[in-house]
Amino acid sequence: MKDENLFHYILQQADNCLILGQRLSEWCGHGPVLEQDIALTNIALDLIGQSRMLYQYAAEVQGEGKSEDELVAFRDAWDYKNVLLVEQPNGDFGMTIFRQFLFDTFNCYFYEALMTSSDERLRAIAEKSHKEALYHIKWSGDWVLRLGDGTEESHQRIQEAVNELWSYSQELVTPTKADTKALADRYGVDLERIQKIRDQKIHKVMEEATLKTPENDYQHVGGKEGTHTEHLGYILSDLQFLQRAYPGNEW
Amino acid sequence: MKDENLFHYILQQADNCLILGQRLSEWCGHGPVLEQDIALTNIALDLIGQSRMLYQYAAEVQGEGKSEDELVAFRDAWDYKNVLLVEQPNGDFGMTIFRQFLFDTFNCYFYEALMTSSDERLRAIAEKSHKEALYHIKWSGDWVLRLGDGTEESHQRIQEAVNELWSYSQELVTPTKADTKALADRYGVDLERIQKIRDQKIHKVMEEATLKTPENDYQHVGGKEGTHTEHLGYILSDLQFLQRAYPGNEW
Repeated sequence: MKDENLFHYILQQADNCLILGQRLSEWCGHGPVLEQDIALTNIALDLIGQSRMLYQYAAEVQGEGKSEDELVAFRDAWDYKNVLLVEQPNGDFGMTIFRQFLFDTFNCYFYEALMTSSDERLRAIAEKSHKEALYHIKWSGDWVLRLGDGTEESHQRIQEAVNELWSYSQELVTPTKADTKALADRYGVDLERIQKIRDQKIHKVMEEATLKTPENDYQHVGGKEGTHTEHLGYILSDLQFLQRAYPGNEW
Repeated sequence: MKDENLFHYILQQADNCLILGQRLSEWCGHGPVLEQDIALTNIALDLIGQSRMLYQYAAEVQGEGKSEDELVAFRDAWDYKNVLLVEQPNGDFGMTIFRQFLFDTFNCYFYEALMTSSDERLRAIAEKSHKEALYHIKWSGDWVLRLGDGTEESHQRIQEAVNELWSYSQELVTPTKADTKALADRYGVDLERIQKIRDQKIHKVMEEATLKTPENDYQHVGGKEGTHTEHLGYILSDLQFLQRAYPGNEW
């Protein structure tokens, strides 16, 4: 391993994007209306695209001759470093929207900050991805408002999503050793600063959408260190089937 | 391959038992009441036990040094010969019960007939399995009656299950080339005869349960020749994950 900390740092974000992209792809053909079905699938593709750039870099950093595909297909759950939020089930449309909004409010400000990284590759990836993330946060933020301010049922459903997902909201901005080391070495992002900007954005949108913050503020962590919910195993068994069944095949 | 027809013939039944066992195991911990949760899991284990005996024999017949585990873990969907019925989703309890009843009414009479096979191994497997199948058919038949004659809701739900599953009811007794050849060679079972006995049993129970046969009598086939619904792929990706990820491991 050339640089273990940088590898872990890249994987945290690469795995976030891959797993959320995979989750969103489950909506393909099942969206509430055609336009939003396509929007969900587009965002899934954007996220998988972002993960690809990160995996390519991670593969180089690992320096063991592994390809991006191998990093995706041949790691088991405990080697995945995504936050628990992105592996949570889609639930209904409200649940998917609020999960997305929680992620986008991280993703957008994270890339913005990463654009000033001292690492040239991370900077380039961040610049490309940030444009997409700006669109995503607008889309999911608008939907939080629409559902929160919509009918009684839409309000109730997205409030349930808030209650369900709130305990997964802060892991994204909770530093691991890799985050702290990356920040110290100046290629990483100051999560404390992101947390403040992000919290403001989340609370502003939630207030406008008349949504309540749950009183219980217990927060799950662990995903970024490889300790996952049972959902990740099922995601990987689908995601990895083809490469596991036909290892090394090219198409 | 020592005997391709016998191999195919054994797999048809082995794969039926494995896939239905796997489906039933999804109920484990989710049954409507504890006793029935345990009943479902017991039946799942019985079926997986039956499949093991059949796979052991199939492995010998194939004569390529493959183990029972390898037959289960390293075949892709098109090499599985189970009927489409057993790969259908569990749905609600009524759906699971009616799927089970359709299978048990085959399984029980099939083993009974196979007990007179000219093949000694098949005879021994059938004798052992028939005892279990007798218990299963009693259990699922009783539940069809209970739900059909129960509340308005239970009646409606199991009638929906009948409507949904009816088009998968006859593949079990629709002969493939392997069935016909096995019958001609006297180790197989006369499916035409089974069909008559089975239809009588099904209609008797359904009548008592005041359930209606759907008017549309279109019947799906293909599973026994390896053409499956999309469900089987997802079942296999879960079922095979461990062996695919850690091939050759023993535990």
